[in-house]
Amino acid sequence: MRRILSLAAMCVFALGVWAQETVAVNTGNLVSPEVKNQTVTFRLWAPNAKEVCVEADFFEKQRQQTPLGEMEVAGRIPMQKDANGVWSYTTSMPNPELHTYCYYVDGMRMLDPNNVYMLRDIATYTNYFLVDGDLSQNYLVREVPHGTVAKVWYPSPTLGMERRRMTVYTPAGYEDSKESYPVLYLLHGAGGDENAWSELGRAVQILDNLIAQGKAKPMIVVMPNGNGAQEAVPGEYPNSMYKPSFMNSKTMEGSFEKAFPDIMNFVESHYRTVNDKAHRAIAGLSMGGFHSLYISANYPDKFGYVGLFSAAINRQAKGENASIYENLEDKLAAQFAEAPNLYFIAIGNGDFLYQDNVKYRQLLDKHGYKYEYMETDGGHEWRNWRKYLNHLLPELFK
Amino acid sequence: MRRILSLAAMCVFALGVWAQETVAVNTGNLVSPEVKNQTVTFRLWAPNAKEVCVEADFFEKQRQQTPLGEMEVAGRIPMQKDANGVWSYTTSMPNPELHTYCYYVDGMRMLDPNNVYMLRDIATYTNYFLVDGDLSQNYLVREVPHGTVAKVWYPSPTLGMERRRMTVYTPAGYEDSKESYPVLYLLHGAGGDENAWSELGRAVQILDNLIAQGKAKPMIVVMPNGNGAQEAVPGEYPNSMYKPSFMNSKTMEGSFEKAFPDIMNFVESHYRTVNDKAHRAIAGLSMGGFHSLYISANYPDKFGYVGLFSAAINRQAKGENASIYENLEDKLAAQFAEAPNLYFIAIGNGDFLYQDNVKYRQLLDKHGYKYEYMETDGGHEWRNWRKYLNHLLPELFK
Repeated sequence: MRRILSLAAMCVFALGVWAQETVAVNTGNLVSPEVKNQTVTFRLWAPNAKEVCVEADFFEKQRQQTPLGEMEVAGRIPMQKDANGVWSYTTSMPNPELHTYCYYVDGMRMLDPNNVYMLRDIATYTNYFLVDGDLSQNYLVREVPHGTVAKVWYPSPTLGMERRRMTVYTPAGYEDSKESYPVLYLLHGAGGDENAWSELGRAVQILDNLIAQGKAKPMIVVMPNGNGAQEAVPGEYPNSMYKPSFMNSKTMEGSFEKAFPDIMNFVESHYRTVNDKAHRAIAGLSMGGFHSLYISANYPDKFGYVGLFSAAINRQAKGENASIYENLEDKLAAQFAEAPNLYFIAIGNGDFLYQDNVKYRQLLDKHGYKYEYMETDGGHEWRNWRKYLNHLLPELFK
Repeated sequence: MRRILSLAAMCVFALGVWAQETVAVNTGNLVSPEVKNQTVTFRLWAPNAKEVCVEADFFEKQRQQTPLGEMEVAGRIPMQKDANGVWSYTTSMPNPELHTYCYYVDGMRMLDPNNVYMLRDIATYTNYFLVDGDLSQNYLVREVPHGTVAKVWYPSPTLGMERRRMTVYTPAGYEDSKESYPVLYLLHGAGGDENAWSELGRAVQILDNLIAQGKAKPMIVVMPNGNGAQEAVPGEYPNSMYKPSFMNSKTMEGSFEKAFPDIMNFVESHYRTVNDKAHRAIAGLSMGGFHSLYISANYPDKFGYVGLFSAAINRQAKGENASIYENLEDKLAAQFAEAPNLYFIAIGNGDFLYQDNVKYRQLLDKHGYKYEYMETDGGHEWRNWRKYLNHLLPELFK
């Protein structure tokens, strides 16, 4: 009896706490997604819905008409409803990856209320789950020492901004050591921000795991906000609670590249860094690959390692900072006169930027500039960028 | 023509990037919530829904039957559908606060897909928006210097755990100074974790603003995970991608309190802290208030400032660490023999823990132990805990 009473008291206490601002969750105790016995089951309680579909990144792609022509989009599969109003769909286990999915209820997109794990890509949230295996082994959190992840503000006099935000990863042991560390500057794509690599990119887990395995050198990784007119991720600076957009101002018109020394100055004066070319790397995806190309070419003595992931080559806008983009061949000549230890180019064979990258490699080939090239399946997507990071890190600072 | 072409190229590029894993967002360009002209409008595209309601924390509460009796729950208001399938509801501007809301579509709870700003409370996400004004002025991000927020791992030998996670706020200027700072240990409630105060509690904004105004002393704020059996927020430690629960093990049975010196040892050996009672504060909400009470009573010479926010008094479980909770009156006698500079108790008059707090104050009164008492409207909810933090910070380390 006493046990029952105390259980009841716990329930009241529990309800009391639940009955905060986030009251009344009527999704029941569904488990979704349920990953077991080599299957994945998605579930959603929607008793009044006429049609519920699940869309997942590992379903067979579908082609769809859009105002800009036919495009490939993620596949959707109808779910089945049971007598309790729970819709479900079970599929065999997909490949080892970080997989994303969402639901469509009578045509309306929604998240899975039973899965708190979600990622924001620009203005869209999507649920995710991880399947463990060879490819994804470094994406999962493991029993290894973890680095510190900090949201740090720095001034950018070049941009006339008192405050800009970066995510800084310092490896496990940094705080207890007196050593200096090499630095990787890791840049996001258009529409992204200083949270992109640590969230969508699983950079923290990949770094923790590769460093713990002895495959990557302990390093500081700096992930700055790459939008020249934006202090930080929306929501983190004054009057910024708008819907994030792919179209930000001052993105590929030279501001960020020109102001990049502000970032390096801050990092090298606030962290224990080794301040030479052999201990500095710069890499980025899409717009960040474009930034990495031009920053490393404009500061040819700074970066011993350069990584271009699905780089948005030749996408610059014209404007007052055009000099950043001019005379690229001369700049590359200077950069490759003392060639970087590694110049790494990676892209998916389905990427809409594929041909631009072919042309860029032809330019490098014409001059005999050495680079490492990695071509994967797939397009302009995070699963590729995680793969490229996981591949690149062990090659840095050797 | 050139302009049109380049716009089209941008769209293709945009679509290319959008067509990542989070494809196909058909919510259109709705703005929701739209806060203007002293009104708030909520919108949702749901052409096939029969009934859509919005639930918001500032609507009149409703009473509802539950298995545990009648309870007060947030009010829901039906929305109206237009010819385009967009449901909307406009209301006059609520009071200055952080306001939360969600939708119910044919009875199914869902988030607003047009609002990327959301908060997780245990296993439930809710959208939010901020209304600026007197009460909320410190909840908004302002043009002021911002502190650094870091996710840091520390060992807890007492718990036999190699890794546990804490959120650490260091005030603006910390990195460029050689000074030592006072420390506030700020503890979360049951079901919470080391992210609760910085997210739901707006602690970062409140600290930045009060420090910038000269109203609070620059301080280090340590927000540890208070669940004795949990390394970190679910998702951040191995095999932890389960649904977060209110019911965690090792919460109010003495483990956390007993192991608290591990946290202090780590903080005082890794940050520039002033290591005396006059420069140490401990405060927490609900379970964290309970922890603050017993930690400060068991280590009576450590904390010059104690804050109990809606404290879950007398909720301890019995077990091997019961000594933490025994002989409280003797411990309080030792603690108040050299009374803390401030012992602060705050609670809402509708809180289900109200009577327990009345009894605890009677105990303090009986012995003539001085404390400051703050009673507000409302219950066991974040809007109160933000208010208490905002009130307490200026009183610390004076």
